[in-house]
Amino acid sequence: MTRGRGRPGHDVDSLLRVAAVVFHERGYDGTSMEELAKRLGITKSAIYHHVSGKQELLRRTVDRALDALLAVTAEPESREGPAIDRLRHVVRRSVHVLVEEQPFVTVLLRVRGNSEVERAALVRRREIDAFLGALVAEAERDGSLRSDLDPALTSRLLFGTINSIIEWYRPQPGLDAAALADAVTKLTFEGLEGCPGERP
Amino acid sequence: MTRGRGRPGHDVDSLLRVAAVVFHERGYDGTSMEELAKRLGITKSAIYHHVSGKQELLRRTVDRALDALLAVTAEPESREGPAIDRLRHVVRRSVHVLVEEQPFVTVLLRVRGNSEVERAALVRRREIDAFLGALVAEAERDGSLRSDLDPALTSRLLFGTINSIIEWYRPQPGLDAAALADAVTKLTFEGLEGCPGERP
Repeated sequence: MTRGRGRPGHDVDSLLRVAAVVFHERGYDGTSMEELAKRLGITKSAIYHHVSGKQELLRRTVDRALDALLAVTAEPESREGPAIDRLRHVVRRSVHVLVEEQPFVTVLLRVRGNSEVERAALVRRREIDAFLGALVAEAERDGSLRSDLDPALTSRLLFGTINSIIEWYRPQPGLDAAALADAVTKLTFEGLEGCPGERP
Repeated sequence: MTRGRGRPGHDVDSLLRVAAVVFHERGYDGTSMEELAKRLGITKSAIYHHVSGKQELLRRTVDRALDALLAVTAEPESREGPAIDRLRHVVRRSVHVLVEEQPFVTVLLRVRGNSEVERAALVRRREIDAFLGALVAEAERDGSLRSDLDPALTSRLLFGTINSIIEWYRPQPGLDAAALADAVTKLTFEGLEGCPGERP
């Protein structure tokens, strides 16, 4: 929680961050504005000063994750050059976004389509999935990735690996975002066995 | 849903299966016994004939997933032979359990420790994680897996890949449990690139 300026909850960033954490812990339906106010140490009316209600909090938490992930797909390194290099870039940068925006991505990945806000989020999430699927397919076609697996399946498993990070990752010595991105890239591209000739 | 004997909801298996699906869709807190009764087309008192309440439904759904996953770790092929062969066996069989017990595993993977039932489930889940972590570490030590990655991290990413299947898998032509287990094993052990000499 940012505590730089004023009390927590008195800026929108810390409000959204706490809302994301509580949505994750209790589920959206299990979260009340009372609980949020208690966690922030402020009154409910102070929350309503920033947002119209729980739906807006959900929309802004998932949009924050979606904006960050879509920004990765728009980077020049994700758009130009050999497909395998673009894929490596997207994998590496996605790990960074997951670490940096962890509470927001966590809420996004739990969205099931139970409301207008959730359905709008799923539409934007499918844009990202389509971009990634096309990138994997291109790298298989040009021979830089193995082609004995279905690209759509490969793409799902690859981003399943990345997304699973949100379940357990906590910032820790020796495992910052860059080190984690290295490990994920090695494991997904080279596998558990590595290649016999290259194994250290 | 099993419809073989009597109406759905009149046997415990279909009751648990529907409960697991609704817990996943609505969250545990967002699920009411009224909603469950409506989905099953039976009365609430018919549900209470089988279980004491929502807590027992949750306990039995997560226990079903845990029993199946712990059974895999107890199989002879998971206990005897070279570590890498045991690990392959556990990966393959875990994919089968996820496909066969998908609604139950889905609920298990959402458990956060919000109640006694959830905390007991996390204790059993950690037993499984410890078994897998030890297996990966052994395979790294004996040189059959790459040793430039931390075994605990490798184990988390490997089982993150497998667990991510529950998010999207639906039985479909050409992708039954065995085909999915093949793809997951290839991708996790050999990687996206495969080994250059071996790429098809």
